[in-house]
Amino acid sequence: MGTPVRVRILGVGMGPQHVTAEVAEALRSVDYVLAAEKADDDRLLGLRREILRRYGDAELVALPDPPRDRSRGLTTGGYEAAVGDWHDARAAQYAAILRERGGTAAFLVWGDPSLYDSTIRVVEKVRALGVDLDYDVLAGISAPQLLAARHRIVLHEVGRPVHITTGRRLQEAVTAGLDNIVAMLNPPTDRVDFTGLDDWSIWWGANLGAPGERLVAGRVCEVLPAIAAARADAEADDGWVMDAFLIRRPR
Amino acid sequence: MGTPVRVRILGVGMGPQHVTAEVAEALRSVDYVLAAEKADDDRLLGLRREILRRYGDAELVALPDPPRDRSRGLTTGGYEAAVGDWHDARAAQYAAILRERGGTAAFLVWGDPSLYDSTIRVVEKVRALGVDLDYDVLAGISAPQLLAARHRIVLHEVGRPVHITTGRRLQEAVTAGLDNIVAMLNPPTDRVDFTGLDDWSIWWGANLGAPGERLVAGRVCEVLPAIAAARADAEADDGWVMDAFLIRRPR
Repeated sequence: MGTPVRVRILGVGMGPQHVTAEVAEALRSVDYVLAAEKADDDRLLGLRREILRRYGDAELVALPDPPRDRSRGLTTGGYEAAVGDWHDARAAQYAAILRERGGTAAFLVWGDPSLYDSTIRVVEKVRALGVDLDYDVLAGISAPQLLAARHRIVLHEVGRPVHITTGRRLQEAVTAGLDNIVAMLNPPTDRVDFTGLDDWSIWWGANLGAPGERLVAGRVCEVLPAIAAARADAEADDGWVMDAFLIRRPR
Repeated sequence: MGTPVRVRILGVGMGPQHVTAEVAEALRSVDYVLAAEKADDDRLLGLRREILRRYGDAELVALPDPPRDRSRGLTTGGYEAAVGDWHDARAAQYAAILRERGGTAAFLVWGDPSLYDSTIRVVEKVRALGVDLDYDVLAGISAPQLLAARHRIVLHEVGRPVHITTGRRLQEAVTAGLDNIVAMLNPPTDRVDFTGLDDWSIWWGANLGAPGERLVAGRVCEVLPAIAAARADAEADDGWVMDAFLIRRPR
């Protein structure tokens, strides 16, 4: 038996400006960085290269992203199974490389590995494939934190809770009686269900930390058109768009 | 009218290792850092000094922390009023210094300014006192993220929500039907109400990122004694203790 491969899962926030001292140090210590290369978008790969240039210049090993069977996205079960297969395919690719190269490898995670990210799960799958590996996880700045920082707000009222969910599940949270909700991974604004939330306050942001960043805040009924327009502007500027918002019931 | 004072509210995580590139750059640009000096504990001041030494060595202006009227902590309303008065007293101190010195000042916030922190509110109070100031906020690594990183977990199941609240409000969240809850600002373990949660899974951590860090995970009914013991050990090591946990209902 050889030495176990060392894998480091590193949260990098939304870019080089959010890299922490411990992540910078980790980047200088790794032999290579593994990343998926998407056929239709090399922007994220470019951002990864920029982070590496600034912190130690480790080699970037880009792997073609395994195709995702989107035809199965019609039902939730089908979607989850398709994502599961896609993670399996990724894990198999990573396992092959880690076995071949050994040493210390890193994965860079946008935002923070603890919120809506699959890297830990995929690395566990690699280990389940029989690769002898140890791994650790370092935190990064997440989208809800950036949203709050840019709007200069705390994510909750004094001493009260905040609920973090997906845009898809927003109404589920409202029905459960929650009154202070962060939504991430949102579909286009006209496909988020804001029914019954007209008089709630919303703090919305897109492409946080990127050149196309946009912020809108106000009462839902008054600012939804401005949000839809700002989302289109962010996408036009950056060629992609990701948004998040905090929504709060009036007292 | 002179130039407005510039105030920067900087999240620094749990220490120098969590300082981001943008916060490091901000620290190098400020004229001085304002901090409250607590009569009974100069540990936080020491950590602040260590952060400043590593990032630009700005002057630390320590102000005696205004006394907090704890006799009013018996009712929630009394508690909130006492905290409000205390923030007012702090704001008045800061206003005097900012008026006198001008320039660019920073506040260092443990964790992230967006979760259970009063700095933004206090700075708004300073402005309400008539100090001409502009401020911005930069995010830092928060306790729930560190908890997740250390346990190498995601804070929720795939695509599902996470609810962040205080230990005091844990049962309120359970009653609302929430099944995946992070609790912060916890009282000693024997004063957190775990009624009905015996078979839930818990991932617990104290003094995350500090020398006395402790982690415990398992089923609530099995690990509560270990948690109480680990909490005492963390406090013995560091002279202070702060814990957080994620708790999840079994499927």
